[in-house]
This record gives sequence, structure tokens and C-alpha cells, in this order.
Amino acid sequence: MSNFSKIKIIPLGGLGEIGRNMMVIELDEEIIVIDAGILFPSSDMPGVDFIIADINYLIKNQDRVQAILLTHGHEDHIGALPYVLSELNVPVYASRLTHSLITMKLREHGLLQQSNLQVIQPNELLKIGGFDIEFFRVCHSIPDSMGIAIHTPYGAIVHTGDFKIDHTPIDKHKMDFATLSRLAAEGVLVLLADSTYAEVDGYTPSESTIQSPIDLKISQAPGRIIVATFASLISRMQIVLDSAHRHDRKVAVVGRSMSNNLKMAIKMGYLNVEPNILISLKEAKKLPDSKTILLATGTQGEPTSALVRMSRNEHKDVKIVSGDTVILSSSPIPGNESLVAKTIDDLYRLGAKVFSSRNAEVHVHGHASREELKLLLNVVQPKFYIPIHGEYRHLVANTELAQSVGIEPQNTLVLENGYVVEIDAKQANITSYIPLEQIFISGQKPWHNSDFQLNQRSRISKSGIVVVGLNIKEKPLALSNEPTIISYGFPELNKIEALSEKTSQVVHFTLENNSDSVIDWYKIRENITTVVADMLYKETKRRPVVLILVQSAG
Amino acid sequence: MSNFSKIKIIPLGGLGEIGRNMMVIELDEEIIVIDAGILFPSSDMPGVDFIIADINYLIKNQDRVQAILLTHGHEDHIGALPYVLSELNVPVYASRLTHSLITMKLREHGLLQQSNLQVIQPNELLKIGGFDIEFFRVCHSIPDSMGIAIHTPYGAIVHTGDFKIDHTPIDKHKMDFATLSRLAAEGVLVLLADSTYAEVDGYTPSESTIQSPIDLKISQAPGRIIVATFASLISRMQIVLDSAHRHDRKVAVVGRSMSNNLKMAIKMGYLNVEPNILISLKEAKKLPDSKTILLATGTQGEPTSALVRMSRNEHKDVKIVSGDTVILSSSPIPGNESLVAKTIDDLYRLGAKVFSSRNAEVHVHGHASREELKLLLNVVQPKFYIPIHGEYRHLVANTELAQSVGIEPQNTLVLENGYVVEIDAKQANITSYIPLEQIFISGQKPWHNSDFQLNQRSRISKSGIVVVGLNIKEKPLALSNEPTIISYGFPELNKIEALSEKTSQVVHFTLENNSDSVIDWYKIRENITTVVADMLYKETKRRPVVLILVQSAG
Repeated sequence: MSNFSKIKIIPLGGLGEIGRNMMVIELDEEIIVIDAGILFPSSDMPGVDFIIADINYLIKNQDRVQAILLTHGHEDHIGALPYVLSELNVPVYASRLTHSLITMKLREHGLLQQSNLQVIQPNELLKIGGFDIEFFRVCHSIPDSMGIAIHTPYGAIVHTGDFKIDHTPIDKHKMDFATLSRLAAEGVLVLLADSTYAEVDGYTPSESTIQSPIDLKISQAPGRIIVATFASLISRMQIVLDSAHRHDRKVAVVGRSMSNNLKMAIKMGYLNVEPNILISLKEAKKLPDSKTILLATGTQGEPTSALVRMSRNEHKDVKIVSGDTVILSSSPIPGNESLVAKTIDDLYRLGAKVFSSRNAEVHVHGHASREELKLLLNVVQPKFYIPIHGEYRHLVANTELAQSVGIEPQNTLVLENGYVVEIDAKQANITSYIPLEQIFISGQKPWHNSDFQLNQRSRISKSGIVVVGLNIKEKPLALSNEPTIISYGFPELNKIEALSEKTSQVVHFTLENNSDSVIDWYKIRENITTVVADMLYKETKRRPVVLILVQSAG
Repeated sequence: MSNFSKIKIIPLGGLGEIGRNMMVIELDEEIIVIDAGILFPSSDMPGVDFIIADINYLIKNQDRVQAILLTHGHEDHIGALPYVLSELNVPVYASRLTHSLITMKLREHGLLQQSNLQVIQPNELLKIGGFDIEFFRVCHSIPDSMGIAIHTPYGAIVHTGDFKIDHTPIDKHKMDFATLSRLAAEGVLVLLADSTYAEVDGYTPSESTIQSPIDLKISQAPGRIIVATFASLISRMQIVLDSAHRHDRKVAVVGRSMSNNLKMAIKMGYLNVEPNILISLKEAKKLPDSKTILLATGTQGEPTSALVRMSRNEHKDVKIVSGDTVILSSSPIPGNESLVAKTIDDLYRLGAKVFSSRNAEVHVHGHASREELKLLLNVVQPKFYIPIHGEYRHLVANTELAQSVGIEPQNTLVLENGYVVEIDAKQANITSYIPLEQIFISGQKPWHNSDFQLNQRSRISKSGIVVVGLNIKEKPLALSNEPTIISYGFPELNKIEALSEKTSQVVHFTLENNSDSVIDWYKIRENITTVVADMLYKETKRRPVVLILVQSAG
């Protein structure tokens, strides 16, 4: 780094979230990538499975990319790895649990053999290309979550990953203040910090604060208990398993993803399970209800999840009955509120008692609130502050917070995905912009330039479609037989006979009145589309999408 | 009422909300209807404008229906009136403001002349058919909100409407405890109570608690202020107008609905406006920014609202600039969270400072929390308790609350829309069920049996559509010319040429291999649909909706 001159920081990613799925750090000619995650689509993107960052910039500069570093094992940080590695096969560094999760994922995608995956230890000094890197422990809602420090001649670049400050975490691994303090003493050039809860005052409660409330609900439940939580929330599983032991209940896991994660967590030592606590669902069904707990996914109201199928009385193995207690140890991810509410309603309808974060203290989330962010800032004392991991308003709230603890306003930056920040010892500026596309994954493959088709889908979903097939003779211009008409998603199904006749009339009229000497098929189709659409509106007061299929009958 | 024998209570309405849009009360052979509102569709109902109650039961029994009583002027209580009165022209009783709002609404629908609208005064005793009725004041987020008491030989039926207990309302009209106490002393048979916030602990703050925080934000704003709130929230307008006067600012209204409501509220005496405070938008633009406040709608992120157009920099008269302060004096209605969040992000992007209930005390809602419901129960002391106005989980929470203050569990009932409760002096039971349809309004008219078409819309919106037009000759079975193919909302647009050729091949093959002696057109179409769908999946790994239009070329 003798000729070291400049640092670049670029958030990539999709939708409104800034930098959560991917951050790019450049030291002169070398590039390192932090995280490779997915985002879930909003309701105006039907048929989109998820969204990944546009990595065109990385592909163009692939000789310069040294590695991908992963902060933790959540899908919004690792989910895009199969897509990214297919195009950019660089080494991937991750902590132990994250490494296991991506190993499973890449194996499923048939990419494990060709991938170069490295396990890192926290505080191990890594030399990757010209980068000097160390990972340090943070607390979050999955074990082995890491922040990352990249050393530069101007001071360290510190990236928090997703984090909260938990002084009493279930897995005993606290936020690594020793490393943060050392980094601060050596001088931190720029701090990139999680903004998810930057609008929320106070402190996020510790994971251990919900042990007692969950234990109390379990002790009071008269019959069977179903605890739904995230499949990756290992500490929550530990709380439930411990409580089950205390109250002489056995635990069975419903659903493949949770079962896989639980097995892996036990095998790797992330879960301490008393002997004979875990049983199969089949065994659980033989025990009295008051002796069992079922662990399941489905906290977001996902239609195919175990809990939602139970709530609809459609689960083949578990029927909800009066006396059941359901604990949703979770909170809805923004956008899922209505689905979750409906699931709770349906569980009540079947006679269950339901506890969720709405009416009981059965969940805490994994992101720092405002007082934690202030503490972080005062410990790390960075020169520059760049909020990441949040939507625009969260980033604004986070910069205002930084200014309130004394960071100079001109040293705080609110970025958008694709903004290029250049930093040296004295200043940080947005110097350019990389135009980014939203890369949608639909049916396991990318869907480029999706706006056009999404607009069509939106139109068609709001109004349905009417398709008219025409056989047209040329001399003179006339229908060679009657039009065929099909509708799909169009409310006036019972009128379709009458509408066929009207269609025939207006098409006949249009063709008869065509006075062009040379036949312009495009124009004829346009004209017929218009007259059919107008006729449909006149007859039904509705405006479906109208498609005309014209075949020349010669 | 000498031969009086039985009371029936039936909640009608759509979706998950129970009884909010319409309640039916029967005393022997006479029926009275409370409210006639609309619900807004969820995101899986594209093209649905709103949902109204299925009033088939009322139409069948129209000779028995005496009147419609309205509790207050919100759309979810009055919005369906044009549709209901078209089929069931009965007198409508409403308080003064509600009466004005429905007068405007029915005039717009051309139904005013034929309607019989009656203004009621609170505590006036009304004799409607065999019913003895009185309206009493409650507090809510629109003036002149009423509860309703219906006197019966077994005691009164008391319906709260939407309510909160506000000891310091802006309009000085407090909850009418005198009437409630008198009714209690006379004996209340059944209490029907708002459950919207029955899951929320404590008391809902008074409207006046946000006067100071809003005033502070207005006093501190450096430039122009835009306050967005609900068009019917007159008390909020009063707070803003008072504060504008205090800080020497003028107020201009943006948008027709808010402007109409404001004018009406002033004319009818619901708003006290200092002289010269209100100006036109045109005048406001001539003043320094620091001297103006704009009042607008758009708090729910509605795409066509003034605020959302401003946030997208698409408003023809108002351009958001750095220095602007936007106050969203509102909270998102469930389901609108993402749209509201996006609007806030976009306002920040344009340089505005944004205050909303997420980061400032600039909104209180209009529904009773748990302590208010307990107080109500202890004042009214009903024999039976029926929670209404909420989704199922809210009703469950409200019955549990009632039991906690001493109502016998068997005297609390959780209903669904269509359940018929029969009550006499001793017991209340669900005795039957009226099957209800969801009545969707789409393009200003009802859309019956919508499930089929909504499923089609859902399929098509998730995957797009491919339409193939075929001309088929009969002897021998063959294409008389090449297939035409059109797609809509289908991602593989660039492959459509190649797919046309493949389509031609598989159709040719299918027709050539048809060995039936009699041509079964239905079966041929089914077969071709399958082979085309399979071919498309093989070529694109996608499964669009496939429609085949077959024309026999004879």
C-alpha cells in the first residue's frame, strides 16, 4: 500500500434498502465485496421471487475483485451468493455458522465444488490481496454475526453488519467492545452502521429479557404449545428448549428448514439440548397435549409455511384445537403485517390462544436502537459516518443522530445504491454514480428489463383481459369467418356471448370502412383494438386489456 | 311492543372486519340498520375499488326495514349508502355533520332527490316504527360521532359506534357519560363496543395532547410547512389553523376533498378560523415560505393524492424543496405501511424534513384502548357484551377484557359477520347463520362471484400470458396457416420469434397425431394448450398462462 491514494465505498443492492445486500470497498485498484444478499419484492412485483444487487460493475472489474466477506447468515446477506458466484467466482470468507449455511446453499445449487469458501475466526488478521481485514463479534438474531474492519493508511473502515448491543446474549457472545476500542485508539476513518432501527428511541432489549415471559406462557399453557419463530433464530430455540425441560415438555420440530437448522446448530455446538427433549412429531402426537411443544416456521404468514397451513386447518399432521397455545416469537417484517394478522385471526377462530409481540413480550429484534447507535459512535469515534442497512428515512435519522453526538454534518453522508464515495484522510465526497438495474429473480433466473412486463401484469391484474382472434381476407378486406373471443380475469363472463356478437359487428364495420389502398396490418390491428375496447366499455363500463390476434386468410 | 318476544343482532359486512360497516338489530318483526360503510380491498384483490356488505337479507326482508341509523361520517360507516339506498330506499337518520356528508355523497350519485334523510339531535328521543331510539355523543376523529341506544322491554341495546374517551376534545364535545349512566341505571341488556384497539393497553391520548407538539414543530420550521392529514379530521385542521395564527403563517388547502370539507366545516360552525388566515395556493406562493402552511391529503400514500404527487415531484403547483417541513399528522391504516414509508423516503430525498407518528407526537387515533373499554364496561354494566368493529383477534381480546372486569364468560359473544344472535332477558345465543357474499365494487358497480376471476388475475399477474391463434383445417386435421402468438407480461419477449417456431412445430405434431375419427374441438384445444405450455416451460423455465384461440378454417 505504499502508493496508496484513494478509497471508494459503493453501496449496491435493490429496492429502497441501501447497502444491506451488498457493499463494495475499494482500496486503489483492489475491490472487496461485503455481503451478497437478497431482498423480497413488494406487492407490486407479482411473480418476482426476490431481488438481487446489480453486479455489472463487479463483473466489468472482475480482475480487481479479491473476495466476498459475509457478515452473517441471514438471507438478505447471503441469499444472492449462488447468483453472484456463478458470474464472479472469488473466495468467500465467513464465520463458522455462516460458512455452514452457505455450504448448504451452494450444495443445493450445485456450486459447492467450484466455490472457494474460507472460515474466518473473529479477530484473526486476514491479508486478502492488499487488504488487511479483521472480523469482530457483534450481537444479532443469528449466531456468529460479525462486523468487519478494513485497515487503511488513513485509519480503519469499520462496517457493523446488522447488530445490536446485547449485554446478556443467550449464546454469551457479546459485542466486541475491546476490538472497537482498540480500533478507535488506532483511529477510525469511517464507520458504516446499521440503520434499521435508527428511528427508534432507547435501547433494544436483550434476547434474555424474553426468557421469563416465554417461560411464563409455557408454564401457564393448559394444552399443546406451538412456538413459531424464524428458522435461523437459534437463541430463541434455546429459550424454548430450556423452558420445555423446566416444565417437563418434549419438543418436536415441524418443517424442513427449521429441522435442518436445528440439527446443524446442535451438531456444531450452537445449541445445548438436554437429553430426550427432542422427539419426532409422530412421537409428540402420542403424548398428552400438555406435555408437548411444537416448533415451527410461518411467522410472516407465508402461505406455504407450517403455521399458516395449521391456521387454515390444512396441515396434514397438526390440527389446531381449543386449548392450544400459539406463541409467535417474532414480529412482522414490513409489508407482511396483513398476512400475519390474518394468520392470528384464523388461529383464534380454531380455538387457539395466541400470543405475539402485539399482546405479550415474546420477541425482541436484532437491530440497534438510537441509544445503542450513540454508544457505538462514542466508542468508535469515526471521522466519517455513513449509515447503511435501511431505507432512506432511516439513513437520514441515523445521520441526524450522529450529528447530535458531535460528528460534523459535512462528515456524515446519506447515500443511495450506486453512489460512489471517495475518501481520503481529509474528506469524503460523493463523486460519481453507477446506474443500477433492479435484478429480479423469477423462476430461479434473472428477469432483466422487467418494468415493461410488470406494468402489463399490473394492468391485466386490475382489469382482466379479452382476446379476439380474427381471420381476415384481403380483397376486399373482410372477415373470413366469425371472430373468436376469450376472456381471462374479466368480470362479465355471463355476457361473453352478447359481447362476441357486438365484437363481430364493430370489426365488420371497421374492415368495411377501411379505405386505404395498401393494407396496413399494424394500423388495422390498432383500429380494431380501439373499437373493441370502446365497445366493451360501452357495454360493460369496464376497460379490460384487449389483445387482437389477426391472421390473414390470404 | 306488548307482544314483544325476541331481539336479534346480526353483524353484516365484508372481509375480516366484523360489524364495522353494518349492524342489523331486530325487535320481533321490525329491522333497523346501523351504518352502511365500505371496506378497502387487500392487495390480493386487484381491480377492486372497495367492498360493501351483502344486503341480500335486508332486501328479502325489505318490508320490515324501518330505517338506517348512521353513527358518524367516515367512509367505513357511510360509504356504501348510495349502493344500499339504490336497493332499499328507507329513511336515514344521522347527526348534523354526518347528514351533510351523506347529502354531498348522495347528490354526487344523483340519489339525493329520492332519499329521505333525517337530522337527529343527540339525546332526542326518536320513535321509528316500534323502536325507541336515542343517539348519544361519543368522541372520535370526526365531529358529531354518536353512539346509539335502542330501548327494549329487557333493557337497552347500546352501540358505541367508533369511539374513544377524550376528556379534553378540541371541539369541547365530550363522551356523554350522563346518558350512559342513566341507561345503566335503567338497565342495559347488551353493549356492542368498538374493538379496534382492544389489544392496546392503557388510554388513548386526548386530541389536545398533540396541540403542543404540532405547535412546536410549526414554530421551529425554517421554511414552508406542509401538514398532511385525513380530510375528515376537522379537529386536526383546527389545531393547525390555531397554530398558524399564533406563528403568523397563512394556510392554503391543496386538494378538492380537504378543501370541500374545510369550507363545509367553517360554514356549519365546526371550525373557528381567525380572519385572513386562509388563503389560496396561488396567494401562498407569493408569500415567503416561512409564512405559509399547506394543508393536504395523502397520509396513506395514495398514488393520486396531493402529498404523494409532491413526494414524486409530480405536483403541478407544489415542488418540495430543501427547507420544507412535512408533518404527517396521521398513522398508516393497516396494509398501507409500505406506501406511506415510500412517500416519506421520497420527501426526504427531495430535501424535506419529515415528522410523522414514527418520530414525533403529531397524531393520536380515535379508538378506545383497553382502560377506556374497561371504564365503559364499568359505567354501562351491561348484562351481555358483544365486541364489534374489529378483526377476529380484536373481538377475542375485547371479550377477554370484559371477562376481566366481571362480565360472565357465557354472556360475552364473539361473532362473525352473518351470525344471528337471539337475545331475551336471560340469555344470548348464536342461533343461526346467514351466508354472506363479499360484494366487490369495481368500476362503480358490483362484481359478484369474483373468486374465479380474481384467481385468474392472480395467476396471470404472477406469470404473464401467452396467446396462440390457430386456423385449423378439418380433413385432414392440419394448420391452414402458421400460428400467431402474442405475449403480455411475459418476460421472454426477446425469444418470442423462436418460441413461435417451436409453437408451430408442437401444434403441427399434435394435429398430425390426432387419431380420433370424430373431431373433438374441446379436446384438441386442451391438448394443444398442454403441449404449448410444456414447450414454453422447456424453453424458458417459465409457466405463463396459455390461451389457445382456435378457428376452424372448414
